[in-house]
This record gives sequence, C-alpha cells and structure tokens, in this order.
Amino acid sequence: MSADEPKHLDKLCIDTIRMLAVDMVETAKSGHPGLPLGAATMAYVLWTKFLRYNPANPQWPNRDRFVLSAGHGSALLYALLHLTGYDLPLEELKRFRQLGSKTPGHPEYGLTPGVEATTGPLGQGFAMGCGMAVAERYLAEMFNQPDLDLVDHYTYAIVSDGDLMEGVCAEAASLAGTMGLGKVIYLYDDNGISIEGPTSLSFTEDVSRRFQAYGWQVIRVADGNNIASIETAIQNAQAEKDKPSLIMVHTHIGFGSPKQDSASAHGEPLGAEAVKETKAFYNWPKDKTFIVPGEARDHFQTVKAAGAEYEKEWRTLFSEYLMSYPDKAAQFEEQMAGRLPNNWAASLPVFKPEDGSMATRVASGKVINALAEVLPHMLGGSADLAPSNKTHLSGYADFGSGQPKARNIHFGVREHAMGAMVNGMALHGGVIPYGGTFLVFSDYMRPAVRLSALMKTHSTFVYTHDSIGVGEDGPTHQPIEHVASLRAIPELVILRPADANETAAAWKVALETPGPKALMLTRQNLPILDASALDITGGVARGAYVAADSDGAPAAVIIATGSEVSLAMEARKALAEEGIAVRVVSMPSWELFEAQPQEYRDQVLPPSVTARVAVEAGSRMGWERWVGSGGATVSLDEFGASAPGSQVFKHFGFTVENVTARVKALL
Amino acid sequence: MSADEPKHLDKLCIDTIRMLAVDMVETAKSGHPGLPLGAATMAYVLWTKFLRYNPANPQWPNRDRFVLSAGHGSALLYALLHLTGYDLPLEELKRFRQLGSKTPGHPEYGLTPGVEATTGPLGQGFAMGCGMAVAERYLAEMFNQPDLDLVDHYTYAIVSDGDLMEGVCAEAASLAGTMGLGKVIYLYDDNGISIEGPTSLSFTEDVSRRFQAYGWQVIRVADGNNIASIETAIQNAQAEKDKPSLIMVHTHIGFGSPKQDSASAHGEPLGAEAVKETKAFYNWPKDKTFIVPGEARDHFQTVKAAGAEYEKEWRTLFSEYLMSYPDKAAQFEEQMAGRLPNNWAASLPVFKPEDGSMATRVASGKVINALAEVLPHMLGGSADLAPSNKTHLSGYADFGSGQPKARNIHFGVREHAMGAMVNGMALHGGVIPYGGTFLVFSDYMRPAVRLSALMKTHSTFVYTHDSIGVGEDGPTHQPIEHVASLRAIPELVILRPADANETAAAWKVALETPGPKALMLTRQNLPILDASALDITGGVARGAYVAADSDGAPAAVIIATGSEVSLAMEARKALAEEGIAVRVVSMPSWELFEAQPQEYRDQVLPPSVTARVAVEAGSRMGWERWVGSGGATVSLDEFGASAPGSQVFKHFGFTVENVTARVKALL
Repeated sequence: MSADEPKHLDKLCIDTIRMLAVDMVETAKSGHPGLPLGAATMAYVLWTKFLRYNPANPQWPNRDRFVLSAGHGSALLYALLHLTGYDLPLEELKRFRQLGSKTPGHPEYGLTPGVEATTGPLGQGFAMGCGMAVAERYLAEMFNQPDLDLVDHYTYAIVSDGDLMEGVCAEAASLAGTMGLGKVIYLYDDNGISIEGPTSLSFTEDVSRRFQAYGWQVIRVADGNNIASIETAIQNAQAEKDKPSLIMVHTHIGFGSPKQDSASAHGEPLGAEAVKETKAFYNWPKDKTFIVPGEARDHFQTVKAAGAEYEKEWRTLFSEYLMSYPDKAAQFEEQMAGRLPNNWAASLPVFKPEDGSMATRVASGKVINALAEVLPHMLGGSADLAPSNKTHLSGYADFGSGQPKARNIHFGVREHAMGAMVNGMALHGGVIPYGGTFLVFSDYMRPAVRLSALMKTHSTFVYTHDSIGVGEDGPTHQPIEHVASLRAIPELVILRPADANETAAAWKVALETPGPKALMLTRQNLPILDASALDITGGVARGAYVAADSDGAPAAVIIATGSEVSLAMEARKALAEEGIAVRVVSMPSWELFEAQPQEYRDQVLPPSVTARVAVEAGSRMGWERWVGSGGATVSLDEFGASAPGSQVFKHFGFTVENVTARVKALL
Repeated sequence: MSADEPKHLDKLCIDTIRMLAVDMVETAKSGHPGLPLGAATMAYVLWTKFLRYNPANPQWPNRDRFVLSAGHGSALLYALLHLTGYDLPLEELKRFRQLGSKTPGHPEYGLTPGVEATTGPLGQGFAMGCGMAVAERYLAEMFNQPDLDLVDHYTYAIVSDGDLMEGVCAEAASLAGTMGLGKVIYLYDDNGISIEGPTSLSFTEDVSRRFQAYGWQVIRVADGNNIASIETAIQNAQAEKDKPSLIMVHTHIGFGSPKQDSASAHGEPLGAEAVKETKAFYNWPKDKTFIVPGEARDHFQTVKAAGAEYEKEWRTLFSEYLMSYPDKAAQFEEQMAGRLPNNWAASLPVFKPEDGSMATRVASGKVINALAEVLPHMLGGSADLAPSNKTHLSGYADFGSGQPKARNIHFGVREHAMGAMVNGMALHGGVIPYGGTFLVFSDYMRPAVRLSALMKTHSTFVYTHDSIGVGEDGPTHQPIEHVASLRAIPELVILRPADANETAAAWKVALETPGPKALMLTRQNLPILDASALDITGGVARGAYVAADSDGAPAAVIIATGSEVSLAMEARKALAEEGIAVRVVSMPSWELFEAQPQEYRDQVLPPSVTARVAVEAGSRMGWERWVGSGGATVSLDEFGASAPGSQVFKHFGFTVENVTARVKALL
C-alpha cells in the first residue's frame, strides 16, 4: 500500500458508501451510479473530517451547509445521511426512488432530514449555495461580537460538469467572486464525462482559468481517491477568507465498475453482471446487498458524536452570548425560527385616495422602506433594475461593502442567479430575502421560481412593469403570458395588487405566510382605493373581494386584477349610469381565493350571476375558470406594441367603452 | 488634431449617428441615449469599413450578419439603417417608439428592414449570433467548392455589460469556443456602467481572462473613439480563423453629454438642457433636430453603393457556381428560400398498431432519422440528453468535427444557449434547426422560446419526458405546469402527439408551416393508433379530431392529449360496455384547433354535448375553455412524485376507473 492509498478503515467506509449507492440504484433499477462511485472519496473526506453538522439535530443554526448540486448523485447523499446517523434508516435506502419513500430520485428539501436544498435541475444547487453564504455573512455581520462568533460556518457543495455548463452557475460564480464569498467551498467532480459522452464534445473551456477570472481561488486535486490531497485542498480553501474556492477533483465516473469513464455509467443502473464485477473489484460480498460492515458503522458513529459535540460547543457559546447580549440573542432566535416581531405590521403604510395616484411598484418601494427598520433581516435587491423595481432600501449600505447594515444586494443582470440565491438565503434561514426584476424577465429565472415552489421556501419575487403598461420598451419588455404561466406553477402564490393599499396588503401576505410569493406591480400610476371604506387587507389575504358593489343585486360581475381594477371601476360607473347594476371584484390572487371556503367564494362570485367579464392585461389562459361558459374576457393573447403605455392600453381594447360593451353583450 | 482623432468626414458621420440617436430619444421622451453616444464610433467603423451588406436587398444570402445584442441601443441601429440607405426614412426615426412605427423601443425582426434579430432581453443576441455562425459554417461545408465559396460571411454583434452578465451568454460563449466559431466577431461596449451604477457594484470579473478560458481571442481597444484602433482590432479578429473574437472596446456611456459615464445616461432621455449641452460639445446646431449634413449623407451613399457591389460580386460567383454545380445551386436556392423538396413527406414513416407500443420520443427519433437524407439541411441536437431525447441522426458526424455532413450538435448542458442558437440558425436561413431537452427544462430556455414566438422563427423544440411518466427521477424532473405555460405564449404552436403516427404528423406540421413549434413527447411507451382507419395526419394538422366515436350520438366527450389519449380510449371502451356512448377527441394542439373554422370545431366538439372531461397529465390551467362550466378535468395541479411512472400515473388518478367515474358524475 502506497502512502497515497487510503487506510483500511477509510477505504472500508468509502467503499461502504459506494456499495450502498450501487445497491440502491440496482434495486430501484433506476438512477445514477457513476457519480457516487467516482465522488465517494471526496464526499467521505468532507463529511467525516470537515463538515460540522449534527445528525441528531439537522436544524442546528450554525451547522455547515452542504448542497449536492449534482442532485442526480442522490444515492451518494442518502448513503452519507444514513451512515452518519440522520433519521434515514436502511429501509429507506432500500426504497430508493419508490413511491412515498424518503429517498426520491433527486434530493428533496423538507422530505429527507439533512437535505439542505432540492437539487437535480443543474446549476441551481451551485447558486443556492452562494445564497446560503450571503445569508451567513449577513447574519454574521448582524450578530457576531468580539470573541463571540455566533454565526460562522461554511457552505460546501459537490458540483458537476453539468452544473458548470449551466448559465445560472456562471452568473452565481461571477457574483460570488464580486462579493468575495470566502466561505463558499465547492468540490468539482471533474470526471470528464457527461450524458452524451466525453466533455470534449461540448465543454473544452479552461474551467480553472474561468473561475480565476471570476475572482475565485482554484485548487486542483489530481487524484480523486487521494484522501490526503483532498484534505489539504479543503484546508487551503478554508484558509482563503476573501475568495470562494473551487476544488477541481479529478475523478473517474463509475470508478471500479466495468463502465468506468464511460457515459453509460451516468444515468442507468450498472446491471447485475456489472454489479458483480464492481463488487469483486472492491472485494465486496457479491451476493449480499446493503451491507454496512461493523467497523464502518462504528466509525461513522464517531462522526455522529463529533457532530453533537460541535453543536454543544456552539450552545455554550450561545449561552455566553445570551448573557452579554440578551436582546440580540432573542432576536437571533426569533429570526432563525422565522417569527416576525410583534406588531411589525403596524409599520405598514396606509395610502389615501387624496395622496393622488401611484404606481404599485412605487407603493412597494415605500412599503419595504417603511418595514426596513422593524424587519432588519429583510434584505434583497434587483437584477440591475433597482431604480425601476423600487427595491432599494434607502439609508442602508450595499451588501459586501463591509459597512454596517449592508443589505442592498446588487445582483447584476443575472435574474436566474438572483432567483436561486434568494432561494438559498431563504433555505439558510434567519433572513427574509427578496429579488426584483421586470415581470417579463421572470422567464430568465423560472427554474429557480419553480424550485422555490417545490421547496416551499419563503422567497419573495418582486416583478414590476407587469403588463403592456410598460409602454415604449415594446413587445420584448411587455409581459403577456407571464401572469398566467406563473399561476400555473403549483404552490406559488401570485399577488397582483390593484393599488398602493393592496400592495401593502400583498406584502403583508408575502411576509407573514410561508412559501414563495410573486408580486406583480405596475410601472404606471394607479388611483388609490379608499382603505377606510374597504377591508383591503382582509380582501387581499382572501385572494378576492368585492371592491365596489351594485346598489341592488348585480346583473353582472367584472373581475379584475392589478391595474385593470380601476378600469373596471370606471366601467361599473358608466354602466350604473345606464342603469346596469355591476359588481367589481378585485382578485389579486387566484391561489388565495381558491383556498377560501366555498361559501366565501360564492359570496364574492354569486353562482347565479353568470354574466361575468374578466379584465386583465395579459393572457386569457385560465380565466374561463372564473367567468364560466357564459362569461367573457378582456385580455390579451398577442404580443404588445411599442408606444406610450396609455396608447397601448387603448390599442388593445383596455377601455371603458370596450369593457362596458363586453358586459352589455352578455346581458 | 492628433493622429488618433478621426478625420473630419468620419467624425461628421459618427456625430450624425449620435445626434440622430439623441434626437430620437428626446423626441420620444423615452429610450437609451447612452449607448449610441458611446458606441457610435465602433458601429460606424464596422458598418462603413467592414460589414458586407446591401441595403437595397437586405435578404442577400451571403451578407454579413449584424446583431445589436444590446437592443436597448436601438436608436443607434435605426440611425445606421437610415443613413446607409435601408428602407427606413427619416420620418420613421421621428416616430421612434410610437405606435405603428418601424422604430420600436427594441429592434424587431420582421418589422424593420436590416434588423437581423429581435433583441433587448439581454444575452439573447449574443447567443443568436453564435447560432447564425453555426448555420453559416454548416452551409459553407455543405455547398462551398474549391475556389467557389458560396457561403462565407462573418457574424458581428455589439454586446454590452448586461449581455455578458447573463447566463445565456456564458453558455453560448463556452460552446462557441468549443466549436471554434472563428467567424464570430463581437464588439463589447465596455463602458463600466449598468443601470444601478458602476459595474464595480456587481461585475468585477476579468472578462478578458474569462473569454480566453472559453477559447476566444480577446482584443482590447483602449479608446473607443479611435477609428484606427478599432479597424486594426477587427482586422485581427478576421485573421483568427479558429476562434471567435471578442473585441473589448473601452467607451464612455453618454459620451459628450453632461451625463457621460453615469448610470443616468443609460435608460432615460438626456432632457432638453443636457441635449443643448451635448449638441454644443459636438458643435451641432442646437435648435434643429434630425439633421443629416450633406457631406455625411453623400458618404453613406458610397457605403450603400459598396453594398450593392458586394452582392453583385457574389451574384457573379453564384453564376459560375450555377454553371459548375447546377444541382447544388438549385438546392442552395431552395434551402435559402425555405422551400422543402418535393415529395419530402413521402419519407415520413407510418407506424402500425401491430408494431407494438412505442414512446413518442422514440417515434420522433425514427421520424427525423427517416427524413435526414431528404432534408440534408435539417440539423440539431440536445442539451446533453440526446440518448434520452432521441435527437441524434444516425450515421452523421458531430457538428464541428470537420467531417462531411457534420450535423449532430452537442449543445452541452446549456438549454438556454441551445434555444437561442436554434433561433439564430433559423434567422440565418438555409437550415432547419431543432433542439431537444426534457420538457421540465424548457424553463431554462424560456426567454429564447418567447423570442422565437415574437420573431416567428422556424425553430423546433423537442421536449421529451413530458409528464409524470418521467417516473423515478421525481418532481424536479416531472413537468406539471409546462404544457400550460408554453401554451400561454402567443404564436407558439404546441404539439403533444398521442402516439407514433401523431408524432410523424406533428413533425410534418413542424417542418412545413412557418413559426416555432414545441413537440411534447413521452418517455414511456404508448399503443399505436390505427392510421389506416383514421386521418391522423389531417387531424393533427387541424389540432384536434375524433379519434374514436360512439355508435350513436355521444353522451359525453373525453378530450385528451398525448399519452392520455390511450387512457381515454380505454375509458371509452369501459363506458361503452356500460352502455354509455362516449366520443374521444385527440387534441394534440390547441393553437391549430383554434385556427379552424367554427364549423369544424363544432363537428369535433358538438356544442350540445356539455358533458366533457379533459384528460391531461399536467396543469388544469385553461382546460375550462374546452370543457366549459359543465365539464371536468382529470389533471394535475400539484408536484409529482418519485416512483416508477405507471405507479405515479395511478397515484394521481390517471386510471380508467377515475376517468370513467368523472364522466359518469357529469351525466
């Protein structure tokens, strides 16, 4: 045995991880055996010699975060979680990729203890990890005191060729470099193989040089099975405080199997024969599955014990902190628990009709600025559109500036990384993150938005310029299908407020209820509804409410959202003058309304009134649900036009004349 | 005057461009004056000394392509188009950003002569240019003969900081480097300013080093107003045949205006006072607008004449080519005109029920392989999922390999760049491009899909694994909302074929009708409908048709798409056994069906039959349109689950029992 080869016990543990992964994939007849075989050594070194975590308490606040960005290697993660003592029994490993198991095809946050992020869609984990590191730094700046580093942990990830090819990774890497996120340490499983074949087919760039250009430290490990080299590399990564580190670990996909170094090791089981050969290579019993040798089991128990010790040390530190800084300690616990301070909502501004008209993006800016002091852990920014999105918190410094309360994040023109990093910040906990861009560019960050919904993270996306009201910028910048297509995402709550007060109410919903929210806000000014006459806060929380009613029973209902509510109000008035009794329903959120009891829904939209017109400056898609077969829509199923916004509205029929005509046609 | 300063005439022409742009923005009271002021010199040098184009015939096949990736600088492009003699009169410049003008806020392909691509959403133009260069190289390899280079042109672009921050640009740049697209020459308007402020806030990477890492040649121009340096740089870029070139031109945003080098020069008009000061700086008449000095006008006329000469030379070459290679010449003209060869559709395979069941992705693979010979200009690939997407053309080499007929493109794990490059290939013309990935990852390329719809490019997107039928890979890989959210995009035609024959028919529609198409294909096997008994080809082309009818008048209609059609067929049979007469409508394409006359639509979906159940393993969103208030849906509005596909279908109620129960509940 040369000095480079792992010692017996280490090798036994590493091979245990490998063989569990092989057995999982083979039993499921589905999955990716290649990554676990190739990356087991680096994962073992990280998880047993560096990563600070406590399997008995996966939520311990100051734990290191680990993200398997290459989520297709889930079997590797499940093997680690099982062996290190998380609540993931061997039975679950045997149910890999089966209905109702805790071991789904790709790691799912919230389902499996110890899984810090849902991964699989490539590049997302890479970027979410950067978001976790942002949260860590912000909390450290907020809470740490001389000699009392309450928040001080690393964010590690294992990333793959596929991750590094994705644009979202490029965006996040560039931003992480700009921010100097020194506690980001990523191990790159550099195996030279992707699904279509060798990476030479499509990926010949000099990764090292690229990451250096981003401002990262790049470290190479020539042999991915060499424990000592991996240890040294991680130590060097930790030593670099001002730059994120990428450790390029040269590995062999499917190591030790007959499919080693081939694309076929990537995404399909090895097959019975190859499993036998692989087990022979590792001197592993051929005819048994899911074996954990006693010696390996014992060794991983010591890891678990060390994890408990890490937390214990931190609890001691926290006790000291509590003595010296009781208020800050209480605030830390409140933030980490995701609780809002008492009475926070009293800081929400109330807008009056006599204040004149106001764009909802402007109202949004006023709301978050009014809340900035009472919610000091709310932070975020825009993908280089802060002056337009009104996402800037006045009087606070830029994140990364080293100044106190540095909470304005400049994401750059990187919508996708912004979305993923907001998710990562939310996953980390302790902060309330938001990110803004034009609604039309929600397309650029859609995979991250979907993941926020799948993970139910408390992410808030601020989408301004939410219709053809964008005006002169024209069709490339005017959302048409975006509200509809975001509504189609399960678990995501869309809020399209009608005025400044609905905007405040929408933010209230966004902040006090779990799960992701997307706020749709106007570029253009809108009149302010009278909050003294309407329960706007309650109405928005219920998703829809009667914003203006007819004197008697309504002959028709106009359902509108956002900027079209004031148009509906005008149409109602015009129809009333003609003796037609019309109710206006403001429906800022389909999702919240659908969650209401049938009784409330029938109150707002009486089943007897079938003359219903929906007015929304966007796709008709789905509005049939609310207007029914007898109804109509004033909507937009074609691309917009470049002209002043008011002209564009008129051009596409968003006029009192057209709305009233559509109502009358139904009666 | 130093040697570095432009000569009088050049300066006059450059300033004319600048002042036209300033006047456009100021007249519109909207737009981006900063880029035109800063980048006018490089644009002028490129357009008057290098770019080969003929304003009198913007479609000349071998013209150089120019893309203003930084589409917000549209005023620059419109000034150039006007001055060089495109059909864009001064009157149109005066109507910048007004309803119905040819000068919208961002350049729009198909609207304004000389605009090669719609740009504005950042990074797209960068990546589309790479796609144009792919098409150019493929056609050159296909047609060029010794001494007769029929296809031989450059693709130029002006790109901005914002472009370079976007992930799609990173993806395309890495791939262009891998491919060695030597005819890509991009000028980077390196002005150090983005909307939120100096790029130091969010973009401190070493761009030069990054692009070198990608395999690009990087050239620096220290002074963006130095004509000679820009000329030399472009010459050096042309000299490098094997690498794309990025010319980093150091400029000053808003050059010569009081807002020079500030973010406020970016996205808002200068204002009357600042315009006066700017015009003073350039010694330009203060009180007149839209001035084109006669000397400048004359000079640009010579450019126009040179353009006509370029085309003339090429026409001479083409005549020679026609003499020597008449068949190839005819084929070239056919391809460039976008005409398909006679009888091409005869090569479409016909599948028989007795062939057994087949996944529609497999059928798709058979279709494109059957067409490969008759459509030699069809090329494409996958974002590293070719073995799964079945996008590989057997017996053909990999694009970039230097071998003949190299038409399989390995896009790498870069869905977004793939989408944009497919669009760029389609824009170039002469080729029929396609790109494939899993449907769930259509999210990664959505901005490119939207642009294909806005531009009406002939792009085909092949989306496989189109439902929970994905199975074990689980929720991260199972599309739910994707069919609905793609349907919401105007102009995009979605085709979700029910079996192998519908898949062939869907490809027929995709190939022979203009505009973008998205094909949704299954991972899992599906039974084959009897093409001898049904007009499947006609039915698919109409969007929906009766796939199985009841003996008498139907009591109910089941509308299904894709993999759920066979489930609907089984349900129909089960209901028939209970004496319930049910019609099954296969509806592969909402968009095509909506384009049919009302009469046909009523034939397929008789208005009298209100008991309608839609069955689709995806979001319910929008199905109310087809089933009406009296109908029901068997759909999926939550995320999927990791398990074998058949179990997942059962788990979510896609069973004969559930479908029949839903039908009976309506009767």
